[in-house]
This record gives sequence, structure tokens and C-alpha cells, in this order.
Amino acid sequence: MPDELDFFFFYGSTYTYLTVMRIERAAAEAGVEVRWRPFNVREIMLEQDNIPFRDKPVKMAYMWRDVERRANRYGIPFNRIPTYPVDPESLANRVGVLAAIEGWCPEYTKATYRAWFLEDKPPGDPEHLYQILSSLGRDPETVLSSADSPEIQARYDAETDVARWMGIFGSPTFVVGDEIFWGDDRLEDALEWRKAHPA
Amino acid sequence: MPDELDFFFFYGSTYTYLTVMRIERAAAEAGVEVRWRPFNVREIMLEQDNIPFRDKPVKMAYMWRDVERRANRYGIPFNRIPTYPVDPESLANRVGVLAAIEGWCPEYTKATYRAWFLEDKPPGDPEHLYQILSSLGRDPETVLSSADSPEIQARYDAETDVARWMGIFGSPTFVVGDEIFWGDDRLEDALEWRKAHPA
Repeated sequence: MPDELDFFFFYGSTYTYLTVMRIERAAAEAGVEVRWRPFNVREIMLEQDNIPFRDKPVKMAYMWRDVERRANRYGIPFNRIPTYPVDPESLANRVGVLAAIEGWCPEYTKATYRAWFLEDKPPGDPEHLYQILSSLGRDPETVLSSADSPEIQARYDAETDVARWMGIFGSPTFVVGDEIFWGDDRLEDALEWRKAHPA
Repeated sequence: MPDELDFFFFYGSTYTYLTVMRIERAAAEAGVEVRWRPFNVREIMLEQDNIPFRDKPVKMAYMWRDVERRANRYGIPFNRIPTYPVDPESLANRVGVLAAIEGWCPEYTKATYRAWFLEDKPPGDPEHLYQILSSLGRDPETVLSSADSPEIQARYDAETDVARWMGIFGSPTFVVGDEIFWGDDRLEDALEWRKAHPA
């Protein structure tokens, strides 16, 4: 059984774009398997009064420049600052929960982030979701109906509870055993930790 | 003339410990000269309502674990979580401003952070300052009297104004031309940027 790493993330986190675009390759090179786990970081951040950007224009401006520079460093495309914040109803996130259960989360997440960052089509907009789901060969009506079901909402809440219980407070966060690593810039630390501490 | 990098920092920032212990070697390897510039990040953070840890126990707990893991990764000693917050009167910082003017800032800063992190002697405590200054061959009375002078306070405020004007909101921050890089984990990005964009 290969080593595993849990990737907790939220569709709407900006730095998560970098991770979504590079985690598969980085993990494959390290021989680590990734479990994609969408959760509601917004709820946890509001609980903890952890508002990094919304009311902080100086920090917000830096964040976008940092994301752009880091994207360039990784060879990840970056055109311009996209719409933010996004997904007020967590619809893109609930579709992600369904995708994780059904096994098509990586493709869906990459398509969602590409649409957001490269075409400025914000996650959670039903029209964009239709396009993305169709392009992945999924039936939008079926998927969106399922994403609105109590079962998927309950699973989303349960994943958020797990994250809260683990001490997770931001996206992306990587989990290896009891250790959590927050931020795209800790992906390498997490992969190294995984290799140094096999399950 | 060698390439330069401005290192803006605050005695009292936790992650800055990592930078203080490794920047000289990293910069020397890159052929970059460091200008040590203490400033009052606390004032800027309060202005911007940017309170990352004080009222956020979950994030605070993570920060200490992350600092410890990163210290281990770099081969920097870490014993246990030291007293925090520190230096309420910015005395350690004002001594740092004087040290930067007089050319003994790196030694003073390393001694201050070592005392804080390895012996739990918080920066800004006059007794600890006496010990540190004596160990560096400086006359404590002269230095502390100068650190309390209007001239040094004015220089501290002026450095803080420069930082604010540049969009700096945290410590450590590295400045290369118009670009700012926030966080110990961006030191390599800043050094690479410097080499790629010679003055």
C-alpha cells in the first residue's frame, strides 16, 4: 500500500490554486497517494475570527502578487487577478464532496480552478458548473441535484468537523498522521514528513 | 558592488527566529549583502487589525509546531515554546535600530533571539539586555540611554514609515527593489529574485 497524504482544501481559497495545479506531480514523484478532501474552511475561519484578506487591503494586494510570483516560479499559468471571494453557497464545494466520493475529484477540481483563475469564471456559479461538469462527461442535473441533497451536505459538514478536530484552520492543509501542514508552501514539508514516517 | 537585500524585521516576531539564524549563510551563498532593518511591525499590524495569533489559539498552536518543525528542518536549535508576546516597550527593537546604525546589528540580533528561544529570556527585559550587550562588548548604560533618545525613536518610526509605505505588514519581510517577500519561507524566493534582477 502506498503512503497516503490527506489534502484538505476549499474551493474559494486562492493559494489552493497553486496546490491543485502541482500536487499530483509532486506526490507522484514522492511516491505518495493523495486523498482529496473538500471542507468548509470558511465556516472555521469565521468561527475563529480569522479573516486574512477581506478587510485587509494591504495584505490582500500582497497575496495576489505572491500567488502570481509563485505561479511563475512553478510554471503555472496566471493571467490576472480573478473575482474574489466566490462560492457563497458552497455549491462548488458540495460538488467537490460528491466528486471525492465518486472518484473524479482531481479532474473536477483542476477544471474548476482553471476556469476561475484563467477565464475568471468563479466557482459555484451554476452556469460555470454546467460547463465544467459537461466537459467532464458528467450529467449536470444529476450532479447538482445530488450536491443539494442532505446526504452530501452532511458529508461536507462531517469533513469540516474532522478538519476542525484536527486543528485545521486554513486551505490548503496537508495531513500526515497527527501532523498538519498549512499552506501550498508546506507541500514539500508534508511529503518529506510522509516519507520519513511511513504509516 | 554586491547585490543587496533589505531585511525588515521585528524583535518579537516568532518566525523571524528562523531567518535570523540562517539569513547570513543563505545570503552569502547567493552572493547577496543583507541590510538589517528593525521596524515596528506591531504598530502596522494593529493599524490593519491584523492579529494572527493573540486571540487565535488554534492558529497559535500550529505556528509553534510549524516553527519547531522548520527549525529541525534547517538544523536550527529549538528547545520549547518561549514566552510570547515580548518587548512591550519596543526596547529591544530600539536597541536594534541603534545597532543597525552602528554596524553591530547581526550579532546583537542573533544573541537576542538565542537568549529568547533557547534560554527563554524575552527580548526587551532590561536585565537580559544588560547581559547581551555586555557579552557583545557594548556598554549597556550608553546603549540603553541612546536607545531611549528621541533620535533613535525617530529613526525607528521612520523605518516603520518606510515599511508601511512599501506595503509591508509582517516580519520578516525581504525587499528587492519594488518587490516585497513576506515570511521566512520566502527568503529563497527573495534571493533568487535579487539574482535574477541585479540592481
